[in-house]
Amino acid sequence: MNFLKIAILGPGLLGGSLALVLRKKMPGVRIDIWARRQEAVEEIQATGLADIASTELEPVVTGADLVIFCVPIGAMPPLAEKIVPYLSETAVVTDVGSVKKPVVEALGAIFGNRARFVGSHPMAGSEQSGLSAARADLFEESVCIITPVESTAEADVAAIAGFWSALGCKVSVISPLEHDEIITMVSHLPHLLAATLVNLVCSGNPNWLNFCGNGFRDTTRVASGPPEMWSEILQTNRESLKKSIVAMIEKLGEVLALLEASNEAGMKHFLNQAKIERDRLKARK
Amino acid sequence: MNFLKIAILGPGLLGGSLALVLRKKMPGVRIDIWARRQEAVEEIQATGLADIASTELEPVVTGADLVIFCVPIGAMPPLAEKIVPYLSETAVVTDVGSVKKPVVEALGAIFGNRARFVGSHPMAGSEQSGLSAARADLFEESVCIITPVESTAEADVAAIAGFWSALGCKVSVISPLEHDEIITMVSHLPHLLAATLVNLVCSGNPNWLNFCGNGFRDTTRVASGPPEMWSEILQTNRESLKKSIVAMIEKLGEVLALLEASNEAGMKHFLNQAKIERDRLKARK
Repeated sequence: MNFLKIAILGPGLLGGSLALVLRKKMPGVRIDIWARRQEAVEEIQATGLADIASTELEPVVTGADLVIFCVPIGAMPPLAEKIVPYLSETAVVTDVGSVKKPVVEALGAIFGNRARFVGSHPMAGSEQSGLSAARADLFEESVCIITPVESTAEADVAAIAGFWSALGCKVSVISPLEHDEIITMVSHLPHLLAATLVNLVCSGNPNWLNFCGNGFRDTTRVASGPPEMWSEILQTNRESLKKSIVAMIEKLGEVLALLEASNEAGMKHFLNQAKIERDRLKARK
Repeated sequence: MNFLKIAILGPGLLGGSLALVLRKKMPGVRIDIWARRQEAVEEIQATGLADIASTELEPVVTGADLVIFCVPIGAMPPLAEKIVPYLSETAVVTDVGSVKKPVVEALGAIFGNRARFVGSHPMAGSEQSGLSAARADLFEESVCIITPVESTAEADVAAIAGFWSALGCKVSVISPLEHDEIITMVSHLPHLLAATLVNLVCSGNPNWLNFCGNGFRDTTRVASGPPEMWSEILQTNRESLKKSIVAMIEKLGEVLALLEASNEAGMKHFLNQAKIERDRLKARK
């Protein structure tokens, strides 16, 4: 399916990067962008990234055959309510939220039969945020998870999968629940660990950060992410996250026992297991 | 103090990088390298990094006015015993170990009045290891901590500080005990958290790693470090490390309580504190 007009709702890091890469990879496509603030609209207009940029939903959404929600997950349901009157019958709608089950349920209920909604999660964030951090290569080689439900039409899944693939993503299709379980472990828990580690070190002595090397820098990079966005994500996914924290505490208890027993062979085995698995991941692009 | 002959014991990532940067920044200085294995000696000879490379200590250490231990911390005391007969009376000796109190105590006792020993910790490692990973810019802008004890002569501290500064390090001078406390928090605990996180994710389902993004990659990069070296470091520093794990578990308990109470303001505050502190660190070079 070829989209002729794409509406991007929210010109932050992801929305802005989407516009950049679409201009590059799909030059014939019309791109209209909605922003909450007039200053953001003017910023987009200055870049020439959009055909129309507006704080009004009507001109942006009307006639779009693909609408992409790039706003914080808490802002999605009220925005979805507002765009329903302007959606064309054949429009496909997706989002880029980091939590899927609550988002897919909320938006699915709002759109019902009035739009073809398929949830997406392009795992292409960064600790930076906002239009100024947008990059045309943000999605290149990144994983994008698509989370259809039982009622989602296969053609719509294929259309959304094709869209993200065209932007350079490696696409996976799994259920919203499974998505949330996995992302808890590979994204939300790591984020929380990074923030907790920074706060722990600074509660000891803030000057200790002066002694950190690249290991600490990398381990805690994500702790610089936007707190407002992340607290919303973590709270929305809290049931799964709570379980993961309990599991992490349990695993740290195992490590503590290895140290208490001066079990050097056990520690070497533990670190070796981690190394084997971590070595499977390619280096950061 | 100008060193005319420098002996590097152990041509791994740090020893090899030292030779590379010394060749570049101190071209007149003689560099001799000792390696345990003949293959490593041949590898160094092929690179031309050393004037003499040998598995024998005598030719390498004799006449050196600076001797640098770049072997794993457990190998340092027996090696120190062996070099004593060859040390010149005016030689300054240092090491690059990641744990300082036990190392400084052990080597200090061995050298006694027979050599001027000052402990060093250039925080310039990487998850890679071995001569093949050595880089001439490894020390550039990195923190190097020097850990004298009461009996250390000020002139020797100044000589070692000047040496690391000349290689591009930002030098700090603190006690071995304080070093170990700080490094536990900014290096050893982060290493253990990275390994624990990888093992936790893989104990759920190894395929989940296929869904990781750059956040997980960075958070866990150090888990690819050499298990043998790290298990030795962690065991050697285990008293301090055990306390830090208990503190981390406690801090994770606080986070769990925020999630349980659905305390979004508290979570935002927690993440915001972490962001403010983490933003102080410059980006990775």
